Amino acid sequence: MKLILLGSGNAATQLGIAFYEAGFKILQIYSPNPEHASLLAEKLESAPATSPAELNINQADAVISALKDSVAENVWRQLDFGNCPVFHTAGSMPMNTLQPFAKHYGVLYPLQTLTRNRKLDFKKVPLFLEAESAETMQLLHKMADTISNSVREITSEQRKELHLAAVFANNFSNHMFNLATQLLQKNNLEFELLLPLIDETAAKVHDLPPEQAQTGPAIRYDENIIGKHLQLLENQPEIAEIYRLISRSIHNSSRQTDKSQKG
Amino acid sequence: MKLILLGSGNAATQLGIAFYEAGFKILQIYSPNPEHASLLAEKLESAPATSPAELNINQADAVISALKDSVAENVWRQLDFGNCPVFHTAGSMPMNTLQPFAKHYGVLYPLQTLTRNRKLDFKKVPLFLEAESAETMQLLHKMADTISNSVREITSEQRKELHLAAVFANNFSNHMFNLATQLLQKNNLEFELLLPLIDETAAKVHDLPPEQAQTGPAIRYDENIIGKHLQLLENQPEIAEIYRLISRSIHNSSRQTDKSQKG
Repeated sequence: MKLILLGSGNAATQLGIAFYEAGFKILQIYSPNPEHASLLAEKLESAPATSPAELNINQADAVISALKDSVAENVWRQLDFGNCPVFHTAGSMPMNTLQPFAKHYGVLYPLQTLTRNRKLDFKKVPLFLEAESAETMQLLHKMADTISNSVREITSEQRKELHLAAVFANNFSNHMFNLATQLLQKNNLEFELLLPLIDETAAKVHDLPPEQAQTGPAIRYDENIIGKHLQLLENQPEIAEIYRLISRSIHNSSRQTDKSQKG
Repeated sequence: MKLILLGSGNAATQLGIAFYEAGFKILQIYSPNPEHASLLAEKLESAPATSPAELNINQADAVISALKDSVAENVWRQLDFGNCPVFHTAGSMPMNTLQPFAKHYGVLYPLQTLTRNRKLDFKKVPLFLEAESAETMQLLHKMADTISNSVREITSEQRKELHLAAVFANNFSNHMFNLATQLLQKNNLEFELLLPLIDETAAKVHDLPPEQAQTGPAIRYDENIIGKHLQLLENQPEIAEIYRLISRSIHNSSRQTDKSQKG
């Protein structure tokens, strides 16, 4: 199968590699960033296009659009997709955003944190599909099944919620690691000391739901320790506010569980 | 070596198991919760004590105190440690809290999330030590080296900061997993769908510092997506507030990096 790839960022790169390694031919790559497009094209034995007009869409079996949400519509507007199906890869963009631009369209959403230069086992990345017709879904499913072992169909509404959940599970937890790092560095302790803790945090939720995996001063609402911690943060009001708010939320979650267990 | 263990919670259980499996004899266990003390004593071929007065401290080489901060002093007050060194295991309790109660004392702080019924490779748990004298440190170091491959000495001040960092790295990131779970369940999607994402979140920071590992709408400050997410959370004001605050903090962190890279 022959594909055209729109975009050259983290998602475009990882999806491009996944399709390329699964034997797809990436005919051309267009990206608003021509330098990145060239680099990615080299990696995928593909050809960079410097403008949308250079794309030979009629030679492709499908177009994968992994553009930033803010530029996607502007690029699609410049293209004639004809009968070629287009699939976007964004978490929070409804499928119908593609409707004014294409006859056949759908969504291929990878639930994973994608970073350009990182080796990833794509077979394990859950892919969530949506398509405008059963026929387009059949094609999309065939493509998705080739690169991942975890594929399912969901609606645009569900995908939006899934994206929000992913922001909490990845973006926000990674920021907690970042704040922890800043605290250690201030004390001349290396971030690496936290790695066994971080690994166990992830490993634990394979066996226990996160609610049961919770430990620490917030769940006990240990005001003595919480007070000491807030004192350490008194010159960092933004981080102190995050500490306060999440501690309260942990405590509220555990009280709700208590209630529902009793009731 | 012969130990007496105070406490029967998560930390007492995991430390008790680690010492027991390393060949230490756990003479007796006292805990304000006699039922838990009995269960743990059975597991560690030890004897439960139903009151502090029953402890034969003069027969032990050291006492490990893994009591809750709020009850520790009250238990220590009832004991005559004589020449026996006592080590507490708390992150945010200064070493000198032990001074009124014991001649020889110190701290053995495990930087890990400890849950009673979970199998853990204790050799990988970083242990942080402090002791009132070089002699007591020597004993403590010998004990710690037996159960872990990652042992170092720090001050009470550093330990407090380390504990705070651990709250962010574990407690708060786990709560982000919990909030993500709640969002999925509301949409009849299983939590397990997030596990590859959570695993990659932890794996990524082995190769990249968390700041460079950051992806998602907050780092780009994509107001379109952030607005959609806040709309989804409009009936959950507490979670919406967490979303807003962490997104702003992620964005501020990245701006600081930009500045320091430019400057």
